[in-house]
Amino acid sequence: MTKQSYLNICEKIAPFIHRTPVMSSQLINDIAGCEVFFKCENFQKMGAFKMRGATNAILNLSEEQRAKGVVTHSSGNFAQALSLAARSLGVTAYIVMPSSAPQVKIDAVKGYGGIVSICPPTLKDREESAKAIENEKGASFLHPSNDDDVIHGQGTAAIELLEDYPNLNAIFTPVGGGGLLGGTALAASLFAPDCNVYAGEPEEADDAYRSLKSGKIETNDSANTIADGLKTQLGDRNFPIIQEHVKEIFLVSEEEILEALKLIWTRMKIIVEPSSAVAFAALLKNKEALKNQKVGIIISGGNVDLDNLPF
Amino acid sequence: MTKQSYLNICEKIAPFIHRTPVMSSQLINDIAGCEVFFKCENFQKMGAFKMRGATNAILNLSEEQRAKGVVTHSSGNFAQALSLAARSLGVTAYIVMPSSAPQVKIDAVKGYGGIVSICPPTLKDREESAKAIENEKGASFLHPSNDDDVIHGQGTAAIELLEDYPNLNAIFTPVGGGGLLGGTALAASLFAPDCNVYAGEPEEADDAYRSLKSGKIETNDSANTIADGLKTQLGDRNFPIIQEHVKEIFLVSEEEILEALKLIWTRMKIIVEPSSAVAFAALLKNKEALKNQKVGIIISGGNVDLDNLPF
Repeated sequence: MTKQSYLNICEKIAPFIHRTPVMSSQLINDIAGCEVFFKCENFQKMGAFKMRGATNAILNLSEEQRAKGVVTHSSGNFAQALSLAARSLGVTAYIVMPSSAPQVKIDAVKGYGGIVSICPPTLKDREESAKAIENEKGASFLHPSNDDDVIHGQGTAAIELLEDYPNLNAIFTPVGGGGLLGGTALAASLFAPDCNVYAGEPEEADDAYRSLKSGKIETNDSANTIADGLKTQLGDRNFPIIQEHVKEIFLVSEEEILEALKLIWTRMKIIVEPSSAVAFAALLKNKEALKNQKVGIIISGGNVDLDNLPF
Repeated sequence: MTKQSYLNICEKIAPFIHRTPVMSSQLINDIAGCEVFFKCENFQKMGAFKMRGATNAILNLSEEQRAKGVVTHSSGNFAQALSLAARSLGVTAYIVMPSSAPQVKIDAVKGYGGIVSICPPTLKDREESAKAIENEKGASFLHPSNDDDVIHGQGTAAIELLEDYPNLNAIFTPVGGGGLLGGTALAASLFAPDCNVYAGEPEEADDAYRSLKSGKIETNDSANTIADGLKTQLGDRNFPIIQEHVKEIFLVSEEEILEALKLIWTRMKIIVEPSSAVAFAALLKNKEALKNQKVGIIISGGNVDLDNLPF
């Protein structure tokens, strides 16, 4: 990747996404001891940064590929993002969702025009169901986080943030599957080489933290965290980028996530998902090291179920 | 009031308030059947439009008056607004709060530098306690909604909204004490005479609705609504403005308030208080009449207690 090729991606996806605002708050700055700039992807189309990667991935398919549709397996934001991005581009999206997925999420995917297939709730079943659709329809499989075009698309949020605030000392993202963190780290390495990229990760799903330590992709035996977007593991496309360009991954407890979540909701007056609070919690945990610096936070999304809030 | 004198107020208070953003959403527009522009006073300093009126009222005091401080009785946003506005202007704020006020609100007022006096939870006790401070300290009493300078200050939100979107067909606000509605109606009559001003009011606290019908200020015997900022009644300063310039007040049920609240939270991804949802609920109830029009909503504030949400 070069700066120019990354700028080309920004330009290509621009008509299909929102340029989201960057918000800040004096009260938050006082609490954090530094200047915090929230890149608000909760205001992105369909409510999360995943719209960027999904759009870029579809745009990079050939006309012939697009005519046959795209397929993914996801119970989360990527399912909705791929459905909406596909619809915007006149492409059919096949979405494999586990039978354990909440009806509200299935309805959301259908609302964006995705064609839903329900499968048993194991990774093996999900992969096999997606593979069957690939074979039957000739649809192109797009992974939610371990795909170069998806990773590059996710990085455009950081590029916009750095365009607005070129002098950031650090950027924090949450880390789940590694698409957002990988894209952010790659973008920052090109556009702001002096800006350190950090991630926050739940103690209860600390696979990425352990992966950086061991040098190989680790998995979680369990993942009992309110940050339900972060239960997934890194992949072979984003792990090398993260190894090269991410300064450190910080673990945060469930209590710290909840406290950070409440701070953002009550002080910023914006709805963010628990995964986004993980990044802010990681900053708060390291506030001494970041004192008086300029710190960006990628707010990953704002899709929450009001009937199942953690407070 | 003239346009110029209103613009002077805008200019005078500008250094002490935020110019809040106007937000919109295609999903909300689809649901409402019109173009909706939310003036986001939830992002105002201390989280509500009350900051505008409090600031304007203090700025209109003489130096001598300011030196002796200001006093009000309020358990809500005006208590915090007056405290913060006073602190910004180097003025002492005495706040009389009922013993029934939640500790979190008392702490918030103290956090903004207000000097709190607790009194028994009746209007008579509140008024007497405030009067005693007026007499003892020589402080100027400022009413939360029935004060010309407060009313004019609240109207500046509508002026900003109309500066950003001059062609609005209608503006909706909630109505409680009548300060926001009166100020908005007065401002719109000067800056956009063709723009109709409407209010939403809870069925459970319908005093303003009945006041417009009867031609005199009515009160509520009870006010069992989740829109806790709207339990107060109109006053002799704002009622004549409302009679002259407000097109209609629409009543909404608690269910309609809750549904509107959830729509704003989940679709706009912003935290607004139930009182703000009352204005949007009133729009939704009258969507046929407003079809394809451009409609502004003054989002009154975003101070909510996450541990006591209505869902």
